[in-house]
Amino acid sequence: LPVRLVVLGAGRVGGAMVADLVADGEFEVTVADVSAQALKRPAVAGAARKVQADLADPAAVSQIAAEHDLVVGAVPGPIGFQTLKAVVQAGRHYVDISFFEQDPFELDTLAKDRGVVALVDCGVAPGLSNLILGHHDAASDYIDRFICYVGGLPAVRTGPFAYRAPFSPIDIIAEYTRPARYVEGGELKVAEALEQLEQIQFPEVGTLEAFLTDGLRTLVNTVQVPDMREKTMRYPGHADRMLFLRELGLFSEEPIDVEGVTLAPVRLTAKLLFPFWRFQPGEADITVMRVEVDAASDGVRSRHVYDLLDHYDPKTDTQSMARTTGYTCTAMVRLVARGLYAAPGISPPEYVGRAPGCFESVLADLAARGVSLAKS
Amino acid sequence: LPVRLVVLGAGRVGGAMVADLVADGEFEVTVADVSAQALKRPAVAGAARKVQADLADPAAVSQIAAEHDLVVGAVPGPIGFQTLKAVVQAGRHYVDISFFEQDPFELDTLAKDRGVVALVDCGVAPGLSNLILGHHDAASDYIDRFICYVGGLPAVRTGPFAYRAPFSPIDIIAEYTRPARYVEGGELKVAEALEQLEQIQFPEVGTLEAFLTDGLRTLVNTVQVPDMREKTMRYPGHADRMLFLRELGLFSEEPIDVEGVTLAPVRLTAKLLFPFWRFQPGEADITVMRVEVDAASDGVRSRHVYDLLDHYDPKTDTQSMARTTGYTCTAMVRLVARGLYAAPGISPPEYVGRAPGCFESVLADLAARGVSLAKS
Repeated sequence: LPVRLVVLGAGRVGGAMVADLVADGEFEVTVADVSAQALKRPAVAGAARKVQADLADPAAVSQIAAEHDLVVGAVPGPIGFQTLKAVVQAGRHYVDISFFEQDPFELDTLAKDRGVVALVDCGVAPGLSNLILGHHDAASDYIDRFICYVGGLPAVRTGPFAYRAPFSPIDIIAEYTRPARYVEGGELKVAEALEQLEQIQFPEVGTLEAFLTDGLRTLVNTVQVPDMREKTMRYPGHADRMLFLRELGLFSEEPIDVEGVTLAPVRLTAKLLFPFWRFQPGEADITVMRVEVDAASDGVRSRHVYDLLDHYDPKTDTQSMARTTGYTCTAMVRLVARGLYAAPGISPPEYVGRAPGCFESVLADLAARGVSLAKS
Repeated sequence: LPVRLVVLGAGRVGGAMVADLVADGEFEVTVADVSAQALKRPAVAGAARKVQADLADPAAVSQIAAEHDLVVGAVPGPIGFQTLKAVVQAGRHYVDISFFEQDPFELDTLAKDRGVVALVDCGVAPGLSNLILGHHDAASDYIDRFICYVGGLPAVRTGPFAYRAPFSPIDIIAEYTRPARYVEGGELKVAEALEQLEQIQFPEVGTLEAFLTDGLRTLVNTVQVPDMREKTMRYPGHADRMLFLRELGLFSEEPIDVEGVTLAPVRLTAKLLFPFWRFQPGEADITVMRVEVDAASDGVRSRHVYDLLDHYDPKTDTQSMARTTGYTCTAMVRLVARGLYAAPGISPPEYVGRAPGCFESVLADLAARGVSLAKS
């Protein structure tokens, strides 16, 4: 019998995952979403079953999960944690890309008790970057340094921002205001986002800038690496403008009085940014990532550098952001479906990277879809 | 008998003018303001009479004017035109620095009928710049080109703006949004403010940037010069940031809805800019101006360049902005009081500059107060 999968969420990423998993031919794929409109998305046309359900209701999620062997999560971040919990409670394996703020390990004991394999943060970064680090962590005596540069960008630079956001402006602004954790000299440190600005030369793309953001997530607890950073990449000039808006107070969540009207400045800013940052229909994006791992084995030190450059697919109107995050997630789904990764409990991708064969399998799946990591 | 003068407005500029006119010893100086607080300003301590009156009421202005021989205007721009009219109707000579938007020539016939000498725009630019052009206009066969670069700046560059505003942010923003008129090839043209950005090397100050603003005022009608521009100078980087805020929509006067609240974005922007742009008590400012006049006489073409660099006076806590605008105005007051300029009707400073001896007299008065125009 085929493995029965359900993909929760038929958004851009969920849709790309449904299309990819259906194409495998080895799964019976259901897709669930609250929006009838989303369920009409061409990408999900091949699904065996379409379920219109309110995924913000954990009882509905548990019920849908119970009807399938494996659950794939692509729901909005704010309901990500409750959805993980609902699936675990239903006793079903879960592979998730619904980045949420809470600590997934709060559900580790529950998942182990239920014998559930629950993979979280299965995108690009966090996701693929963690997988790379986990792989080298297992293959090396020790790792000195890890840095992940990552960015989603419009392919063509347009307007005063040369930027488009795959999410709403308010979520991007949150990345620029949230204190950024990093590890230096073996100590966990916190800086302001947008600090530690540097320039990066990226093949085929040119000069980019990179700045600190709070993207290490689980890595600050799961690996012993004395120097770790995650940096976001943008076209040059972006950080300066964001710093400027932040310093002016336009990113503030604190409501202020303006001539009798009370408003948090960030609300106005997000509203004004929206038309500038919105991808136009059919507008091409790119995903860029560079991961550097400094490792030592048998006394030999090496720097492993991985470069990823992926493009929008005009044939299927699939954004690169959806390709890179979605196909990493579906590659993880195959690991679980085929029993190649079977550790009960919560597993971030660095755990998966440590397990024999998993790293190679995910990279092979990505390569087959045109997402290739160049190693140097 | 001494000439009885009244200075309308005891603000920073009005105060500096009162102190300057009192020091002459040849005038009996009254100062009028609605604010009791303003009338306690040390600068106006030497006035013979202090009148607390609502200058927004034209009847009050006419009454005060009638009690004096000559009126000096330093009221807020929005009531500048009605104040001019009230003084003219009272039949008193007027020297004004209260820049207003309306066309002063609407009152020219009335002023001529009453035999009133009314000098308007008697500051630095407009003001001194017009005087220079008028002087060369009278002394030359023709003038090819006039450009005025002018800026008021903090002496020390601080914070994300390296700028302080002598007026409220909303008035500065208005200069960055008002279409800028200029003359090119003999035609009146209109560009957006902040356009035609260039860099200027200014002695002792260093590199500044200059961009088009709508500062030609009366000159577009009163002189025949085929190429005329007024540009505002700032420390480098200012125009880029202002363009950015403008393009983002943050200078818009158009109210928009933000999550149920209706607000013109510029209101929030002005509120957020205020603490950054406000001069701190005792903070030093500078005034920079460069005027270039390309003139021809008897077949000889010359470029006349005037540079002005003036500083805050810490002894009397007088801002350079108040010194340069105020002392230009008081120099014009002396011309009228002494009968050196006596043409009835509305006279912008270019008319004064054309009259024999006036240009030299104003420059001598300014030099005596440490405001010197370097000519090259």
